[in-house]
Amino acid sequence: MSTPIEDFFAVIPAGGAGSRLWPLSRADTPKFLHDLAGSGTSLLRDTWDRLVPLAGPDRVAVVTGRAHRAAVKAELDGISDNVLFLESESRDSAAAIGLAAAILHNRHPDMIIGFFSADQVVHGMPMFNWAVQQAVEAARTGEIVSIGITPTEPSVGFGYIKVADAIDIPGAPEARRVERFVEKPDRETAQHYLDEGSYLWNAGILVARTGVLLEEFALHAPELYEGLMEIAAAWDDRDLRRGTVDRVYPKLPKISADYALVEPAAKRGRLAVIPGHFEWDDVGDFASLARLVLRGRTGELAVLGRNSRVLSDAASGILVSQTPRVISVVGVRDIVVVDTPDALLVTTIENAQRVKSVVDSLKLTGRDDVL
Amino acid sequence: MSTPIEDFFAVIPAGGAGSRLWPLSRADTPKFLHDLAGSGTSLLRDTWDRLVPLAGPDRVAVVTGRAHRAAVKAELDGISDNVLFLESESRDSAAAIGLAAAILHNRHPDMIIGFFSADQVVHGMPMFNWAVQQAVEAARTGEIVSIGITPTEPSVGFGYIKVADAIDIPGAPEARRVERFVEKPDRETAQHYLDEGSYLWNAGILVARTGVLLEEFALHAPELYEGLMEIAAAWDDRDLRRGTVDRVYPKLPKISADYALVEPAAKRGRLAVIPGHFEWDDVGDFASLARLVLRGRTGELAVLGRNSRVLSDAASGILVSQTPRVISVVGVRDIVVVDTPDALLVTTIENAQRVKSVVDSLKLTGRDDVL
Repeated sequence: MSTPIEDFFAVIPAGGAGSRLWPLSRADTPKFLHDLAGSGTSLLRDTWDRLVPLAGPDRVAVVTGRAHRAAVKAELDGISDNVLFLESESRDSAAAIGLAAAILHNRHPDMIIGFFSADQVVHGMPMFNWAVQQAVEAARTGEIVSIGITPTEPSVGFGYIKVADAIDIPGAPEARRVERFVEKPDRETAQHYLDEGSYLWNAGILVARTGVLLEEFALHAPELYEGLMEIAAAWDDRDLRRGTVDRVYPKLPKISADYALVEPAAKRGRLAVIPGHFEWDDVGDFASLARLVLRGRTGELAVLGRNSRVLSDAASGILVSQTPRVISVVGVRDIVVVDTPDALLVTTIENAQRVKSVVDSLKLTGRDDVL
Repeated sequence: MSTPIEDFFAVIPAGGAGSRLWPLSRADTPKFLHDLAGSGTSLLRDTWDRLVPLAGPDRVAVVTGRAHRAAVKAELDGISDNVLFLESESRDSAAAIGLAAAILHNRHPDMIIGFFSADQVVHGMPMFNWAVQQAVEAARTGEIVSIGITPTEPSVGFGYIKVADAIDIPGAPEARRVERFVEKPDRETAQHYLDEGSYLWNAGILVARTGVLLEEFALHAPELYEGLMEIAAAWDDRDLRRGTVDRVYPKLPKISADYALVEPAAKRGRLAVIPGHFEWDDVGDFASLARLVLRGRTGELAVLGRNSRVLSDAASGILVSQTPRVISVVGVRDIVVVDTPDALLVTTIENAQRVKSVVDSLKLTGRDDVL
């Protein structure tokens, strides 16, 4: 991939605390700032590095909270403030995506915009590039395009996309219509999807013309749309931006992009999908992280931490070491141990999804110092 | 118990690193310096408090390593150096017991001496006192006397005493001859002992005349005996003690009292036992510690640590917290988590006995900083 795609702008929504990865992931150092792929750099940086060749170095933007400005600039070599869209507070994913779409639509009315979550892991760049190129071609014809991954297990941590007929789009030979979009299912349903064969995992990627996206918001989330329009109009005016954001953003409806945009679009037959033939994970919890670090070496203990001093015997699962302490793990199977300077988690792979409830309990009991 | 027993001297051997309780128990803060009984004071202090009413405040001695002098004095209200017998290094239990017996024999040739390990937990003082009184009466007739506890489960962590016929001793109506003395058995053998009904747990208590003990040493461990005699002769001479100890003690044979004294005495029919009707535990590992803290509330998580900040859900076992960190334990059964400033252990109740091998590995790999 030597030349960036001409009319394409990539946007990285960098939000979400990653509470299923507590105490590794925190409010001030969320998931996307960690090196979870073992690449030596953060997930955010990995995402940025994947997108720069596709969109060009000046056409990769980040949407994130004001609190993360310094960390994001440090990770992305001082990324220009022009493409760093800062939210005054988190208002869920529809607002974040809509904010970027509205600002960029004002600047470049005819662009194709692609959203790529900041906290995902991808292996196999040629196939990733090929999927994005097809998605852009499909978006050019007015489609809203997702990318789907062929399931390898009945995961309850991902959303699913039910695929229908092929669509005839030049340059996007694998494009298919999406029949239905389903939020994280239960185990039984996930197994059914896997057996049935026509479901893909939702890879958290969305590509469309900015104008098409904003039309959908106007239709399905008019209140959100009005607010975003007001902010976008003021955004590139130094005197107006901050005041407008501070006044309007906190009142935007707090809904997810899946609910406000993707599901309604799928229902109206406006959603397409490109199957992605690359390795993909959203590292949603410690089970996922263990799988990622072990890469098939089941029955072993995955150790994450540059200066770990670990002594394990008859142990499997995952150990995250962020302190210089000696850690001994003996005779425990599928264990999860996360050792940080001010908080320690001990659970199992099987209970990985329950970690979110720990974070909820810590909030309720006022122990925000470790969140 | 208002009057101490007239011719009785109690000695507390305070040795042993307690490696099965690592990383709670360390070389510099061994098991006996910890409050494991939840009494608010250390096991050593608890032991001392039990013995002072029986022997009198000036007739409770401690044998321990020189390295522990300051800690022991602090725990025991500045116990007199006259009854603090310091080893230059650890030479196992036969040397420690023999040292105290030899010194005290020189001072009070006709005394009865009782040894009580520093790291055991006892509940039920009247029955404890009654057992010790009977043991002293039996020792007065020349017997070497142990105290045995009726087993409640097939423990593999304790030694066993096989009981034979009653012995007719005035003042010791429960005294029985010991047929055999057995080191920690395997599970199957332990179950057999439990079913068979004539075995008691060895409570780590030994009572005898000093002269009788020294005769046994002379017979079964002559090299040890010679060394101890030389040290004892020099002990109460300010000019000679240190030099003699430094020269002789490091060369003493390193053998256990069970091997050098108790087993041979049992074989020759010289060992008696008094059944103890008190609650007893030696807190040998984390399984034992969990049992002790929970006291029957199985299926719960025992938490040890004054300032613990613990959040547990669907968890059972034991958690030792020695740091101010928030600890979350979720969905793990019979877990053992020991959180200290420089070392962390995660294992299970079932693997409690394997903790010793962790300590061995740490030694082998040169990580003595956490031992």
